[in-house]
Amino acid sequence: MTLLRTHLGSTLRSARVAQGRTLREVAKSARVSLGYLSEVERGQKEASSELLNSICSALDLTLASVLADVVHHVKIAEAPILVVVDEAAA
Amino acid sequence: MTLLRTHLGSTLRSARVAQGRTLREVAKSARVSLGYLSEVERGQKEASSELLNSICSALDLTLASVLADVVHHVKIAEAPILVVVDEAAA
Repeated sequence: MTLLRTHLGSTLRSARVAQGRTLREVAKSARVSLGYLSEVERGQKEASSELLNSICSALDLTLASVLADVVHHVKIAEAPILVVVDEAAA
Repeated sequence: MTLLRTHLGSTLRSARVAQGRTLREVAKSARVSLGYLSEVERGQKEASSELLNSICSALDLTLASVLADVVHHVKIAEAPILVVVDEAAA
């Protein structure tokens, strides 16, 4: 099942890792606990809208840019699996 | 402050209204309580990822299409206000 929190978490994690920052740094800047951020990143906890904004801010990202990335990944996850059958070879 | 749940709620509400369906119908189809759906639509409650999927399903919408609409509205909400000054008139 495609879950919003899974894709939101992996997008936030990817952004943090791409910036070379630790969980501790981003959690401190976002004023959330390290455990909370870690659970959000792993898709184990639903981030409240307010704390999602704090995390986006701490990563210097807009909510829209984070969500646009999530849409991209959700689209792929929801796409039907395409099976190509080579009829000529059958 | 731009909140994900506000935009998610209004997107879900707009989709339901565009389909000419009542809260009661969609809540029943999504197997959520009418009060819960109403609170989610008004941005007063964070929808869990699982129940968000149920609501999208009940509306015959993919999660990606709902989120794409949310991104559109969040972008507008986050955009800086543009003030046009007519210098010629000054």
